[in-house]
Amino acid sequence: MGGTQLLKHKTFAILGGDLRQAHMANMLAAEERGYRITGMYLDKDVKLSRKIHRSDDIRLTLPQSDVIIFPLPMLDADGFVNTPLSDVRLEPTDCLDYISNESIVLAGRVPPELARRFQEHGVTIEDYLEREEFAVLNAVPTAEGALEIALQEMPITLRGATCIVTGFGRVAKVLVRLLSAFGAQVKVVARKYGDLAWVSACGCEPVHISEMMEHLAGADVLFNTVPAVILDEDKLKKLGRDCLVIDLASKPGGVDFDTARNLGLKTIWALSLPGKVAPITAGEITLRTVNNILQEKGAL
Amino acid sequence: MGGTQLLKHKTFAILGGDLRQAHMANMLAAEERGYRITGMYLDKDVKLSRKIHRSDDIRLTLPQSDVIIFPLPMLDADGFVNTPLSDVRLEPTDCLDYISNESIVLAGRVPPELARRFQEHGVTIEDYLEREEFAVLNAVPTAEGALEIALQEMPITLRGATCIVTGFGRVAKVLVRLLSAFGAQVKVVARKYGDLAWVSACGCEPVHISEMMEHLAGADVLFNTVPAVILDEDKLKKLGRDCLVIDLASKPGGVDFDTARNLGLKTIWALSLPGKVAPITAGEITLRTVNNILQEKGAL
Amino acid sequence: MGGTQLLKHKTFAILGGDLRQAHMANMLAAEERGYRITGMYLDKDVKLSRKIHRSDDIRLTLPQSDVIIFPLPMLDADGFVNTPLSDVRLEPTDCLDYISNESIVLAGRVPPELARRFQEHGVTIEDYLEREEFAVLNAVPTAEGALEIALQEMPITLRGATCIVTGFGRVAKVLVRLLSAFGAQVKVVARKYGDLAWVSACGCEPVHISEMMEHLAGADVLFNTVPAVILDEDKLKKLGRDCLVIDLASKPGGVDFDTARNLGLKTIWALSLPGKVAPITAGEITLRTVNNILQEKGAL
Amino acid sequence: MGGTQLLKHKTFAILGGDLRQAHMANMLAAEERGYRITGMYLDKDVKLSRKIHRSDDIRLTLPQSDVIIFPLPMLDADGFVNTPLSDVRLEPTDCLDYISNESIVLAGRVPPELARRFQEHGVTIEDYLEREEFAVLNAVPTAEGALEIALQEMPITLRGATCIVTGFGRVAKVLVRLLSAFGAQVKVVARKYGDLAWVSACGCEPVHISEMMEHLAGADVLFNTVPAVILDEDKLKKLGRDCLVIDLASKPGGVDFDTARNLGLKTIWALSLPGKVAPITAGEITLRTVNNILQEKGAL
Repeated sequence: MGGTQLLKHKTFAILGGDLRQAHMANMLAAEERGYRITGMYLDKDVKLSRKIHRSDDIRLTLPQSDVIIFPLPMLDADGFVNTPLSDVRLEPTDCLDYISNESIVLAGRVPPELARRFQEHGVTIEDYLEREEFAVLNAVPTAEGALEIALQEMPITLRGATCIVTGFGRVAKVLVRLLSAFGAQVKVVARKYGDLAWVSACGCEPVHISEMMEHLAGADVLFNTVPAVILDEDKLKKLGRDCLVIDLASKPGGVDFDTARNLGLKTIWALSLPGKVAPITAGEITLRTVNNILQEKGAL
Repeated sequence: MGGTQLLKHKTFAILGGDLRQAHMANMLAAEERGYRITGMYLDKDVKLSRKIHRSDDIRLTLPQSDVIIFPLPMLDADGFVNTPLSDVRLEPTDCLDYISNESIVLAGRVPPELARRFQEHGVTIEDYLEREEFAVLNAVPTAEGALEIALQEMPITLRGATCIVTGFGRVAKVLVRLLSAFGAQVKVVARKYGDLAWVSACGCEPVHISEMMEHLAGADVLFNTVPAVILDEDKLKKLGRDCLVIDLASKPGGVDFDTARNLGLKTIWALSLPGKVAPITAGEITLRTVNNILQEKGAL
Repeated sequence: MGGTQLLKHKTFAILGGDLRQAHMANMLAAEERGYRITGMYLDKDVKLSRKIHRSDDIRLTLPQSDVIIFPLPMLDADGFVNTPLSDVRLEPTDCLDYISNESIVLAGRVPPELARRFQEHGVTIEDYLEREEFAVLNAVPTAEGALEIALQEMPITLRGATCIVTGFGRVAKVLVRLLSAFGAQVKVVARKYGDLAWVSACGCEPVHISEMMEHLAGADVLFNTVPAVILDEDKLKKLGRDCLVIDLASKPGGVDFDTARNLGLKTIWALSLPGKVAPITAGEITLRTVNNILQEKGAL
Repeated sequence: MGGTQLLKHKTFAILGGDLRQAHMANMLAAEERGYRITGMYLDKDVKLSRKIHRSDDIRLTLPQSDVIIFPLPMLDADGFVNTPLSDVRLEPTDCLDYISNESIVLAGRVPPELARRFQEHGVTIEDYLEREEFAVLNAVPTAEGALEIALQEMPITLRGATCIVTGFGRVAKVLVRLLSAFGAQVKVVARKYGDLAWVSACGCEPVHISEMMEHLAGADVLFNTVPAVILDEDKLKKLGRDCLVIDLASKPGGVDFDTARNLGLKTIWALSLPGKVAPITAGEITLRTVNNILQEKGAL
């Protein structure tokens, strides 16, 4: 995305998260722009560059950090800051006490209540998960991860396989292009005529959602990208018993999993693929998005 | 797009236009759904199916037509109905007198004033040029036409050529995919980070518009898709003298043509490519869009 | 490959082998051409169609079989017929006693000594492993399997990854096309100028083997397809420590595995991928090849 | 193909030919390796670099040239050296008198009789047309030229068009890949099972030549690459009247042109496309091949 010419002498705190955050810190350090980078709560199974300072002391580190980057998701299931590579449990509001309202704070999937709480103290959290380019760039590792699953689980080659993709958002667009390159027969189910026209322009077979039922029987694999249960009992029954179902949709997912199990269908609900299948790339994507945000803020 | 199951015994008037309208009439007739189809002002250089009735008499034909399809553009430069395959000159408002307000009227690029005039008589004109799927589907013949020009004009193969595409709308998306398939080096200039991320996901090189100047010198061909003069004197001067410029943007176009000529740059302003390079496909696209409109209206 | 119109009332014995043989039997049965098909030594973990007769008695079955299909490889490591889905141990020469010299006998990877032995009894074994189309068709599951490994093992996306492929035979040709579709940077190392020209025509970067050393440092993954140890200590040392090495070459392989291990390089020697990653497709490929052989013999 | 590091202080004579030879001379000069390059009989419509010496005097120039490059074809229809950019008529044997047998002489399509004549004087002509890499590299401009014709002549888009390609040599392989990228339905007619397997692996539909007749009716365009009249009257009659036939085969071509004309089929015999549609690339290909020859001879 061209040069990301950050100003010198900025201080960064990269706090919590998994391998993605660690890789992001390493990549930022490797760019050698003269930043002071501190990695926090990134302890286990991780090789941080020697250029990165380490600290778990929010009282010392946060007040002097120009940019503070929380992980995606920002919080774990218990409401603490998401720090899977550390044994420390950290309240997000404890951090708040040490963050200057001149700092730029970034995080992924910020609960609205928490955002409001920070806002009351004059601290705006930029949620990079909301950025269009973040979603687009992550469509690539998600689609590659979906292909990895299909290649592993299917007893036939993708070349010649009949693939149904439901939905035609970002992930579906990348996935469909790759499936076509493998020589699969690709059908895409969508509702909008504009989307169906795109499917057609991409050389795949468009199927209006009202005609979906008639296309299920011949599928070797079905990738769902629609976050609503469109694969209900009626539809699942139409699928062949050997059809693999890969659900890429976030909660609640697009499959009636209980029924699928009862029917003996192999169903895989694949969530958060970028961090799992390509953590380094996922870290790079976060860094690129962070850079864009900082540039728009004139902070670079 | 699945079957387009129209009801039987409908009457269609397909009025004016070029080969696209004629092909649309032929395709509609070939579907054999029992419609009565009348072709109007489609006389020259055209083979209409024998299943199509012919009439140039709007008084007889329009009142009994359930669906009336005007061409794209609806009017010619002088404000008459656009009838290039006929010598008749027809005032659009003359038609109005014979159109029942129970008829469905479709046309492409309808002047707002005319639309209002029809509306006052209870006749709504559906402008199919406004439909998303129409634009998407036409991106394919437009991109193929742009490639045809590039292949004709360039003394080198597209394989290995450095191509710059400005803008990343529908046409650019299709064009970029084809250029990549040829093995060209493709750079795409855009403004939005989300678009640049897509460029990246497609395996091409994203260039933010602020950095465009630095990439111009090495281009073998530049395709503009932005309908604003972004190729001004400063930018044109950066292009090599052998660089071909193909402007796909509608008026005012994206190139300062006078300056380009003075600089000795070969510049081609390619407008309305679908009708020129693939009239049969263009007619098919119109028919498909018309079908979608009729289906949404419950008219089929 | 068009219709494979076999004559009716032929008798087939499909003997031994793994899932591929079983799937081949099922597919042949599904074609419903009126053959009598007997599956032999296909007992474990396998669902044979009810249209297939079962017998483990070579004395009864072989003499009356027009076509006898042994597996790939024909023999196991101990020199018995390769029957992994059965507990029976079967001497190949025991079969010979019951095979009419009017039968057509097919097998994969037939030891020359055994072929000669059969020949002495008037029985020619057709080795389908030697067929060009068998090798070409198997290049697809092999390349897909190689991609599956790369997707599993690499912490980055293939999009944007630098991939080196050594050799430019059948598997490499398919693999390179897929890697390019993923948006990888693909370099192919070959010796012949004709091959390097093909690499170039495919939009990849050709590297003459004499210049290979200079390209190793930047690789994220290296796929070897050359069945000779070209990745010796000098070359392995040039690779980055995070570079994944996938060796697709048959014995002796193309990598000095001991040195690779000492250097801490992750190296995967992936043999016989089609049967492992896509047994149904592999069975279909065998069937198609068998059909071609039978057609050339006028047996169909 | 990596750097082509030629030794310094070599002298080259580039003699006759069309724009391709001129471009080759310019590219060789642009590499700035310290050669003395003389362009001969390259006068009309041509911009030679100022680094290139000009001479039409074979007595002075040839004896002191280390490398002498004749054009493709070496001779014109009248048996003179092919010099379309000059008014001079030059007997090839006149040149022979001034060529040292220490010079390296290259030419394209050398008549055997002439080669023998030169050989008698101790001068071996290297025919670069015979080189595998020359043929492969030229398959790209040939395929692009074929697409240019198809795009110009067809009233429908390639996307969705049914294309038949006869033969599966170099040009066909490149062409098929591009047609597939356009989203065409591609069928390839071949005789060998190995070729048909490749077609299948490329995601296209293989058609054995014995079943060709049944596939002709639905074609929108047919590209022939087989240099034998396979499109005889019976086959031509099966094609639809709107089917475009593009014959890429060298003499005698693959089409019964008289019958095609009588049937009203649009048939285009496209010969020598690289020099016509992409002369600069064609010159670059010749230069690359010449470099390979010189390197193999240890002359560089």
